[in-house]
Amino acid sequence: MKLYQMGLAPNPRRLNMFLSEKGIEVPKVEVDTRKREQFDDAFIKINPMRQIPALELDDGTVLTESVAICHYFEGLHPEPNLLGRTPLEVATIMMWERRMEQHGIMPVADAFRNGNPFYEGQAVSGGRPLPQIPELAERGLARIDHFYELLDGFLEGKEWLATDRITLADITAFVAADFAKVVGKRPPENLPNLTRWYSAIKERPSAKA
Amino acid sequence: MKLYQMGLAPNPRRLNMFLSEKGIEVPKVEVDTRKREQFDDAFIKINPMRQIPALELDDGTVLTESVAICHYFEGLHPEPNLLGRTPLEVATIMMWERRMEQHGIMPVADAFRNGNPFYEGQAVSGGRPLPQIPELAERGLARIDHFYELLDGFLEGKEWLATDRITLADITAFVAADFAKVVGKRPPENLPNLTRWYSAIKERPSAKA
Repeated sequence: MKLYQMGLAPNPRRLNMFLSEKGIEVPKVEVDTRKREQFDDAFIKINPMRQIPALELDDGTVLTESVAICHYFEGLHPEPNLLGRTPLEVATIMMWERRMEQHGIMPVADAFRNGNPFYEGQAVSGGRPLPQIPELAERGLARIDHFYELLDGFLEGKEWLATDRITLADITAFVAADFAKVVGKRPPENLPNLTRWYSAIKERPSAKA
Repeated sequence: MKLYQMGLAPNPRRLNMFLSEKGIEVPKVEVDTRKREQFDDAFIKINPMRQIPALELDDGTVLTESVAICHYFEGLHPEPNLLGRTPLEVATIMMWERRMEQHGIMPVADAFRNGNPFYEGQAVSGGRPLPQIPELAERGLARIDHFYELLDGFLEGKEWLATDRITLADITAFVAADFAKVVGKRPPENLPNLTRWYSAIKERPSAKA
């Protein structure tokens, strides 16, 4: 088994945090997206969508999409549990995870990919070459402010987003907030629930994974 | 149990198709987004994110996000199976489902929400009021053409996207392709794998659910 990834990028990072929380170790192969190694022929054979992470199993089967890979490992090693034990808990965690993608990961990605000169002509991950849209970068920045306010509200009176323990929903939201520094949007310190929750995750060993 | 939904909209529709394929009937309450009923106070109490579908359980618990609700029903009624029986199958179906969202549902949503005058000021579902970005509508249209070519390639030599039977991945892709008519992008007839697969799903009773 081999995990193609790059720790700095948000999708590999949430998978790395997930694996760290579960105590699972997987041999890793670095794909340096700063050198556009995901476009090398060798990697395109592994993932024709040219995205990381990608998990290659011993029989050559390749899984992509960070959340799908999380579900694979959760199925093999259900505890410590990060994706739910009952149908209702599974659905609740998935609901929160998707909200965090829509309102956290996506605005950060919109701002970064449409605003950073490095991505000129590559504004959509995994897609064909496409020009950047500066207005979409602007919209992303405005939505990140909203994301922080939303998160603070969601965390009112709750330790974690979805249930009584950390789950993939928290990991996704944390990675979005932590990565937002690349577009100059660190979590504001005047939102008390957000600050408490963010600090609690930042101190976990998985945040350094 | 009550399902708040509107059959014409893509996210409720993929849940309806999923339930129909599984033979599950749930009492439905129509929320007419053409009349902006998702912004009514009564509905905001059910889903503060102002999105459909939303499933209200008998104890008042509310689940949102169509894919999360699918996982809830799959957990309660695993057969006929649409989300996988083993960890590898679950992850494979989820990988394909997410690819179909990224390259199908999202471009159609970008084109529709940023190009249709009805959504002026509401360009992002579930978010705060935001202006439309005409260039994003254009980019969505270009990406839909790419989506059809991608799908045709993915379906080369395969009956279904993820495994040996219809799954949520096929439903998501079909709903994206079928909804693209609202932006004038019906599936082109010169792509043989796409045409075969699309016609096969169109004939299933669930396509009328």
